[in-house]
Amino acid sequence: MTGPVGHRVWVLPAGRIPFPSNGSEPEFTSFDALCVLNAGGGPAELALTVYYEDAEPVGPYPVCVPARRVRHIRFNDLIDPEALRLDRPFGVVVNSSTPVVVQFSRQDTRLPGSLAIATTLAFPADPGAPITVAAGPGGVGPAGAGPVGACDHDPQDGG
Amino acid sequence: MTGPVGHRVWVLPAGRIPFPSNGSEPEFTSFDALCVLNAGGGPAELALTVYYEDAEPVGPYPVCVPARRVRHIRFNDLIDPEALRLDRPFGVVVNSSTPVVVQFSRQDTRLPGSLAIATTLAFPADPGAPITVAAGPGGVGPAGAGPVGACDHDPQDGG
Amino acid sequence: MTGPVGHRVWVLPAGRIPFPSNGSEPEFTSFDALCVLNAGGGPAELALTVYYEDAEPVGPYPVCVPARRVRHIRFNDLIDPEALRLDRPFGVVVNSSTPVVVQFSRQDTRLPGSLAIATTLAFPADPGAPITVAAGPGGVGPAGAGPVGACDHDPQDGG
Amino acid sequence: MTGPVGHRVWVLPAGRIPFPSNGSEPEFTSFDALCVLNAGGGPAELALTVYYEDAEPVGPYPVCVPARRVRHIRFNDLIDPEALRLDRPFGVVVNSSTPVVVQFSRQDTRLPGSLAIATTLAFPADPGAPITVAAGPGGVGPAGAGPVGACDHDPQDGG
Repeated sequence: MTGPVGHRVWVLPAGRIPFPSNGSEPEFTSFDALCVLNAGGGPAELALTVYYEDAEPVGPYPVCVPARRVRHIRFNDLIDPEALRLDRPFGVVVNSSTPVVVQFSRQDTRLPGSLAIATTLAFPADPGAPITVAAGPGGVGPAGAGPVGACDHDPQDGG
Repeated sequence: MTGPVGHRVWVLPAGRIPFPSNGSEPEFTSFDALCVLNAGGGPAELALTVYYEDAEPVGPYPVCVPARRVRHIRFNDLIDPEALRLDRPFGVVVNSSTPVVVQFSRQDTRLPGSLAIATTLAFPADPGAPITVAAGPGGVGPAGAGPVGACDHDPQDGG
Repeated sequence: MTGPVGHRVWVLPAGRIPFPSNGSEPEFTSFDALCVLNAGGGPAELALTVYYEDAEPVGPYPVCVPARRVRHIRFNDLIDPEALRLDRPFGVVVNSSTPVVVQFSRQDTRLPGSLAIATTLAFPADPGAPITVAAGPGGVGPAGAGPVGACDHDPQDGG
Repeated sequence: MTGPVGHRVWVLPAGRIPFPSNGSEPEFTSFDALCVLNAGGGPAELALTVYYEDAEPVGPYPVCVPARRVRHIRFNDLIDPEALRLDRPFGVVVNSSTPVVVQFSRQDTRLPGSLAIATTLAFPADPGAPITVAAGPGGVGPAGAGPVGACDHDPQDGG
């Protein structure tokens, strides 16, 4: 038997959705994105918690990544429990029900006629073993825990 | 004696070959690439499995990296078992017969007159010990296992 | 109970604040930045030590990241004990009183009409366990230790 | 007492010095660079081995990083035992006499009027413990071992 590939907790400190955009949409729209690969045999239920410089964390944002699938999630598309504001520093903690791998990607077209891109892996915060996170202040745990969206009713799914 | 350097399983979630390209070919052609270093004394037989958002994984794509060699592989050049489509989100799991190190590199010339580049290490998914991956649905195991191309008949090798 | 997320020592070797800048300020000002996420329930007191090619390390620069907050710190804003010069190679060691995650981000507008960006995680240098760093030559320890700024009087806080 | 920070073996697979350059020199010259931070109390003697797609590895390139210093090394400046050719895929294994941290940085000005940059940490290949590497084929060991340049006569030091 093969175990799942990756980690269950991923951290990304340097979020900031570039604003405004230049060029035709959607291909040249500025974005910050999380790219998740679930190589496992079952769905990965993700709970994203968004951290700010000047406000309590917001979340969980439930996201589903089906078995044997990749999913590229633009932060612009996260609207429930609340939409992310553009051009505001944020970070994110991803809690997954099963091991996945998470990569960050940015496209910046704030300057007309110029395209800038950047990418990095997120940071795998758990040592490989399953972890348990408890609810903290504001209903959001220190590591962004909380009830995750079930994969059959995922509010980020464009449904 | 010296052991090999690196890991045997690497994961890259944020693939998407930029399209179209601008500027002279091939130096300014948009690409996503995997760059593999095999510092060991024997060949590394790689099996790449490509994951999508909306379809079952495809693979294995066999790739050979000879002993004491680096190899930079553009995803555009992977054609067997099937060519990757441009401008489509994908991820990849690399299984290697011997430890290697894997880095991702992107060149994006979709915008005329502008060059954008990005790079990151891929994620080393095995804890350092040899792992065994079994075949799963569609003939492709959860971690992208499968028969690897022997280094003396590598279909990605430009023949 | 949930433990904190991340590491207490982070290293970034490739600092160099781009100079000059082009375009409107502050959105297109060139910068090197450290982005820190503190998902824990208490404040993180950071001590940054800056390393140079041709001079002894300078620090500690105290920085506070409150509980459940992210903080994006431009190196241009570090002024105490001394301002960083622009366009000079440097590296930084971050010591934190509690586990955090650290990412590096660069914006380069030295070339008029062109925007370039890059990002990577910093390197987590401690194995996960709390570490103790002692003062070394010049009052700065090998790993950048030293007294950290208390979170209620943070000289980098723009106060 | 405080131990040194980092690892002794680092790997970078995706080298390729961009060519040609556009814009004024040296600030806009295209380059690939290794950025090394030695936070320790003694000098770090580095031995770089360069790997190619179509030739045996070349090295060691001795480089010295003094105690408590950072050093940013452009691959263009490596000339002994032989200069690196531009626009040719390569990888590098760094062996250090003492723990350091290594980051890769690229500046690409091949396209007139456009600046592109990218960065990533190199891959730390040793598990943290001191390792021993033995000489292999061609006088260069599998992990790039070999006699290192003593820090008081470093041929890459611009003499």
